[in-house]
Amino acid sequence: MDQTRLQQQLAFIMEIDKLKTILRQTLIGDASRRENSAEHSWSLAVMAILLSEHATAKEIDLMRVVKMLLIHDVVEIDAGDTFAYDDKGYEDKEERERAAFERIFGLLPEDQRAECRSLWEEFEARDTPEAKYATSLDRLHPMLLNYSTEGHAWRKHGISADRVLGRNAVIEAGSGALWDYAKDMVEQAVKKGYLLPAPEGAQR
Amino acid sequence: MDQTRLQQQLAFIMEIDKLKTILRQTLIGDASRRENSAEHSWSLAVMAILLSEHATAKEIDLMRVVKMLLIHDVVEIDAGDTFAYDDKGYEDKEERERAAFERIFGLLPEDQRAECRSLWEEFEARDTPEAKYATSLDRLHPMLLNYSTEGHAWRKHGISADRVLGRNAVIEAGSGALWDYAKDMVEQAVKKGYLLPAPEGAQR
Repeated sequence: MDQTRLQQQLAFIMEIDKLKTILRQTLIGDASRRENSAEHSWSLAVMAILLSEHATAKEIDLMRVVKMLLIHDVVEIDAGDTFAYDDKGYEDKEERERAAFERIFGLLPEDQRAECRSLWEEFEARDTPEAKYATSLDRLHPMLLNYSTEGHAWRKHGISADRVLGRNAVIEAGSGALWDYAKDMVEQAVKKGYLLPAPEGAQR
Repeated sequence: MDQTRLQQQLAFIMEIDKLKTILRQTLIGDASRRENSAEHSWSLAVMAILLSEHATAKEIDLMRVVKMLLIHDVVEIDAGDTFAYDDKGYEDKEERERAAFERIFGLLPEDQRAECRSLWEEFEARDTPEAKYATSLDRLHPMLLNYSTEGHAWRKHGISADRVLGRNAVIEAGSGALWDYAKDMVEQAVKKGYLLPAPEGAQR
């Protein structure tokens, strides 16, 4: 056995344990505290497996989807979580995340670093059926949590329905069924006061 | 689309969000707080992917390993986490966990419930190469966290090296390389005072 290789892999695994300390704006389902990015990634991987029949593409490489989702947020260890509706934070998000990728995934053996880079870039580019489906889950899950916590993060930041629909319209490319579900949920959320209605004349 | 089927799947996904509130005895890597079972499952799924070359079996169905690891602790939502060295807790563990399985996975459509039951039973039985490899990760990861937190859970509960080696010897069936690593770590942990030495004449 190549002891060095195993040591590199375990050093990476211990390093990414820090993802458990990166807090998101969303609360977990029982509203007791903010969700962290490691447990968020777990939720998405489970969803990928259970909801694959709803993906738009008939043929999907589920293992690649799961891999993408398990590592997609690791860069936040250095770059932080950027709130979905933080336009300012998005300005230098890519640059911050690229530097984070180099440092953190640099701990891995070269072949595995290359595979992770390819998975991460595929996820970010949203061009393949796998990346589109993975994105639809990454967008739907916080909506489910926000809905179940009576709109906690939406209300805290004064978000309106048109912004939620605008930002999350990418769900449709990955799964029409999940997008239909998401639109219904937004409508219900407005009715229940979890989410502000779209201002008059708002464009999505 | 079968709306009812999607609703069942999402009801399950929201229910298992509670795994984020189940606390383990182990601290996360930076020692700031106890680890929860959802983020633990995320760590294991990442490990499964990155360490598969170290599995004893040459041919392994990695997707099945990842699925097992993502759901293996969901029953703890009702049954609680049983600490590895709690002999009393282990007496009725199986019964508590079976009842938990029926309630929680009962939320899923029947075909998915059956698949999850099969995965969970495979994991618990530890008979297949996939289950053996999955188990080796489930045992190694808390050891890594205990080591990195200066033996927190070991010291808290006065655990000695022979008990750690005895309980975790199952790692060897899944991966000889990981078991070698684990044994070295235990030796180091005793030297550093993170773990009590085996009492004289102790049998593993």
